[in-house]
Amino acid sequence: MTRIVRREEIEAALPGVDLLAAMERAFVAWSSGRAVVPPVGEMLFSRPPGEVHLKYGYVHGEPYYVVKVASGFYQNPAQGLPSSNGLMLLFSQATGELVSVLLDEGLLTDQRTAAAGAVAAKYFAPAEVARIGVIGTGMQAELQLRHLLPVTGCREVLVWGRGAAQCDALRQRLADTDYRIDLAASPAEVARVCQLVVTTTPATRPLLDAVAPGTHVTAVGSDTAEKQELGPGLLAAADVVAVDSRAQAASRGEVFRAVSAGALDMASVIELGEVIDGSRPGRTHAGQITVVDLTGVATQDIAIATAIYRSVSHAD
Amino acid sequence: MTRIVRREEIEAALPGVDLLAAMERAFVAWSSGRAVVPPVGEMLFSRPPGEVHLKYGYVHGEPYYVVKVASGFYQNPAQGLPSSNGLMLLFSQATGELVSVLLDEGLLTDQRTAAAGAVAAKYFAPAEVARIGVIGTGMQAELQLRHLLPVTGCREVLVWGRGAAQCDALRQRLADTDYRIDLAASPAEVARVCQLVVTTTPATRPLLDAVAPGTHVTAVGSDTAEKQELGPGLLAAADVVAVDSRAQAASRGEVFRAVSAGALDMASVIELGEVIDGSRPGRTHAGQITVVDLTGVATQDIAIATAIYRSVSHAD
Repeated sequence: MTRIVRREEIEAALPGVDLLAAMERAFVAWSSGRAVVPPVGEMLFSRPPGEVHLKYGYVHGEPYYVVKVASGFYQNPAQGLPSSNGLMLLFSQATGELVSVLLDEGLLTDQRTAAAGAVAAKYFAPAEVARIGVIGTGMQAELQLRHLLPVTGCREVLVWGRGAAQCDALRQRLADTDYRIDLAASPAEVARVCQLVVTTTPATRPLLDAVAPGTHVTAVGSDTAEKQELGPGLLAAADVVAVDSRAQAASRGEVFRAVSAGALDMASVIELGEVIDGSRPGRTHAGQITVVDLTGVATQDIAIATAIYRSVSHAD
Repeated sequence: MTRIVRREEIEAALPGVDLLAAMERAFVAWSSGRAVVPPVGEMLFSRPPGEVHLKYGYVHGEPYYVVKVASGFYQNPAQGLPSSNGLMLLFSQATGELVSVLLDEGLLTDQRTAAAGAVAAKYFAPAEVARIGVIGTGMQAELQLRHLLPVTGCREVLVWGRGAAQCDALRQRLADTDYRIDLAASPAEVARVCQLVVTTTPATRPLLDAVAPGTHVTAVGSDTAEKQELGPGLLAAADVVAVDSRAQAASRGEVFRAVSAGALDMASVIELGEVIDGSRPGRTHAGQITVVDLTGVATQDIAIATAIYRSVSHAD
């Protein structure tokens, strides 16, 4: 019997799931070549404008395959609705039976993206972080900070966003944590004083062009060919540039933009899964600049859907 | 709030839904060019062997878009499970919200395929049908006969299949109808005495090479480039050849095989939706041989999912 899991039940289950460990396994599964991930399906709407993406795949040797439907209808907020929506479906790899319907409305994509940022910080942030910098004040900025809590002891945060009101709102949403959140005057100020920087905006022109030695940057905002948060010079200056998927980085995200600009050689780019499984080094000394560019891979969806289903059904 | 519809509820709703009318609208929507249907997504499994198809699309001006996941795991019957499985998802075209999850396990695909056969018979069968012929004795053979009940007054059926036991089983499953079902010695015997023939097998070599003048043939078994139930000569001899989708017929089904064999000119092939909307004639006199080759189009899935949802939710 198919297990239907409503959003409220997913929200209740999330605190009990080790998403960081699930994302580590997801990136290793991806980099090991055990994942089967067909091309993303896409469908566009014009009245009103909207887009739907179908992402699906499985990992050899695991019990489930996953289909994710994710949509963006950008006039929704005018009606008081979120622009993002969707669900995840978990099927048996052995029989094709539908095991679970996760009615997450896009929540699990947001969560797995934030947990991936924490994985990047775990392997690349310098040992001493005096301040965390966040570019953007939206929901992903909040979730990144939440998922960083177990990964760093630092609680000083400098945020740059559209304005003081948005920064205040972020501070209020994080009032249950012990973060102290200040507003920066510019992205450059964030770059100057923070050692762990996360960029979370849908910008299409670079917000950060340079960071100080000893800084790690995780870029999660850009997941298309058009979006860009980091100047090519920042990636050129980095000692290590890692991505979730080299295949995807060839056509989208910060690495795509830097390679297109001639500032970066794709051959020097490593995968996060290779660092997690120990086959490549991550950060090797405190003074390095490191960049992790995340565009999102299907193994993350498989891992988070499987973890939530196991949690709510007490299945192995 | 997403409406979850279990299989039992779908089964209970089906008798109250006018699937024939829904399929007529579906074929007209397809042929009118109002449908947006991206390429089918496919994923293959090897241990055990299996395949998953993602079909999705929408019709401009309608309220919903539909995503269908359909799987075949061919070792399932050894464990007492059906090889086919899947579900349909109904989303709002206006906001992307998930309106309904139809847990049909493939049932609605079988039903819409059978209802499409009835539509083909309605427009192409001769006025006088002394006997209905069915090639195949499986579930689709049964459903085709059930959906033909309102379309023809004929209750004499000649079936050819793998053996007498399978024919007996089909007769028992249809015991609630007034069909009289006999077993044919060969497909050729079916062709000789029946005026309305439906082929429902997964054959990969022709079972029927010729039919008598005044016969209509609906072919629903072949939906890939490999499967074939009708000899190219039968299509060459036909006065009218119609398909659900000319675009699909270019790469799969009986028409694909006949065109590949040089027996048929694709320019002469019409679409069922063009006949339903009156822009092309169907059968124009009793002595014609007509063939309708159905490979299945996404507008059928959209139409049946919408009809079932409206029925169970009493929505407009």
